[in-house]
Amino acid sequence: MALAYDPLFIASERSALDAPPSTPPPPMILTQEDLKRIAAYKAVDFVESGMVLGLGTGSTARHAVARIGELLRQGKLSDIVGIPTSKKTEEQALSLGIPLSDLDAHPVIDLSIDGADEVDPGLNLVKGRGGSLLREKMIEGASKKFVVIVDESKMVKHIGGSRLALPVEVVPFCWRFTAEKLREVMEGYGGCEARLRLGGGGERGEEAFVTDNGNYIVDMYLEKDMGDLNEVSDAILRLPGVVEHGMFLGMASTVIVAGELGVKIKNKHSSSCF
Amino acid sequence: MALAYDPLFIASERSALDAPPSTPPPPMILTQEDLKRIAAYKAVDFVESGMVLGLGTGSTARHAVARIGELLRQGKLSDIVGIPTSKKTEEQALSLGIPLSDLDAHPVIDLSIDGADEVDPGLNLVKGRGGSLLREKMIEGASKKFVVIVDESKMVKHIGGSRLALPVEVVPFCWRFTAEKLREVMEGYGGCEARLRLGGGGERGEEAFVTDNGNYIVDMYLEKDMGDLNEVSDAILRLPGVVEHGMFLGMASTVIVAGELGVKIKNKHSSSCF
Repeated sequence: MALAYDPLFIASERSALDAPPSTPPPPMILTQEDLKRIAAYKAVDFVESGMVLGLGTGSTARHAVARIGELLRQGKLSDIVGIPTSKKTEEQALSLGIPLSDLDAHPVIDLSIDGADEVDPGLNLVKGRGGSLLREKMIEGASKKFVVIVDESKMVKHIGGSRLALPVEVVPFCWRFTAEKLREVMEGYGGCEARLRLGGGGERGEEAFVTDNGNYIVDMYLEKDMGDLNEVSDAILRLPGVVEHGMFLGMASTVIVAGELGVKIKNKHSSSCF
Repeated sequence: MALAYDPLFIASERSALDAPPSTPPPPMILTQEDLKRIAAYKAVDFVESGMVLGLGTGSTARHAVARIGELLRQGKLSDIVGIPTSKKTEEQALSLGIPLSDLDAHPVIDLSIDGADEVDPGLNLVKGRGGSLLREKMIEGASKKFVVIVDESKMVKHIGGSRLALPVEVVPFCWRFTAEKLREVMEGYGGCEARLRLGGGGERGEEAFVTDNGNYIVDMYLEKDMGDLNEVSDAILRLPGVVEHGMFLGMASTVIVAGELGVKIKNKHSSSCF
């Protein structure tokens, strides 16, 4: 379907956010970073004073957290409590003066905003290429509304369709065994390659990446559409060495997709463009 | 059903294991420790030279590990490789000179021997009151044969029937939130109380118990028969903060039960006494 081009909205990202320009802007080329920022700012429109907010992790969510900090500083938002989904986001939010708490103190969250690595047509997500899938899943699963922000490159026909990783957080104990079991389980769902994520240290980053919870990540590279995702999810979770996987099924209430031609908002049971 | 009393077998535990006494022994009172040792020694009868063995954790499994060490020392067993299910068992096995390896090197195990906290009529188990349920589940799930050794006090009509804990290993991050989610999930299965396991340190042991994997344990105290255990298992595993639970469903191939009146062997699809 064709997307409506909204020069006003895009222009507002570039010049004066609260005062639309009186003349249409000249044509411009938007970078992926621009698109991420556009989606993030749009998501922050959902934020109201007094809310408890789940703060996502990653290059897109970072723009949303920055925008929330900006609106707080400008006095346009107040009485916000942020629940960060990673240590990295916690540091960013603290540097911006966003008051923080945690799930134990706030077991119900009004709104979470986060990026995703893949979004399928049913608004199922892959997350965790940034490595904090477990905390994100806990926090976003506890949210009344979960707004996902992506640029259009993240939209896929089926989970795994980008040929990039579907991450699985595993206990370090005998991770090779768990990776092999994952590979075996996935034989029933189109097959996969399973590789330990590196980059945790060592001279050439050759040590295992370690999550905020002290676990490892096994990245699965899928060969085909897996079929019934809920069935795959349960099969993966039944492996004892698995802590969590990066599929977020049925959790997103809204997905904001920024593309060259404008912003598209998809809701759980409908979608709209503007 | 009545159990056959086997004075020879029990006597052998007390006097000369390899040489039956010429006259029946006098009546004796067996302690729970005696029963544990009887079951453990019986399980070690399944061990053959050349096997890769999963070595369990806890007060009953300890007797089996000790017996394997003894038979190796006597030259009655040879060429054994042990895969310990905990750091504690690793230490015990090393002190006995049992050669050790891990699941990565031996992804298929010939035989595992371990205790259990509860055994139901379908040979489903509760394990993990000793705190090493995750490693046990990985290793015992990779075993061609899994022999469980218990004294008769562990036999229950249904899982949770002992009114003792069903342990769940959870990530420390926001464990209170996860414990509350567990309690909510279990409302659909007869209800439970959920409490953090303590004893990890502090002046009066008031700090959280920490597993070998750096996680916490939430102990669930069930109020009723949960019904479909596989359904409960999946529901628990779907909670993002949960790493693993202590139900071992359909995993035991043989359960050896030592009681005052003798030893009973229950196999997955039949049972026998002697």
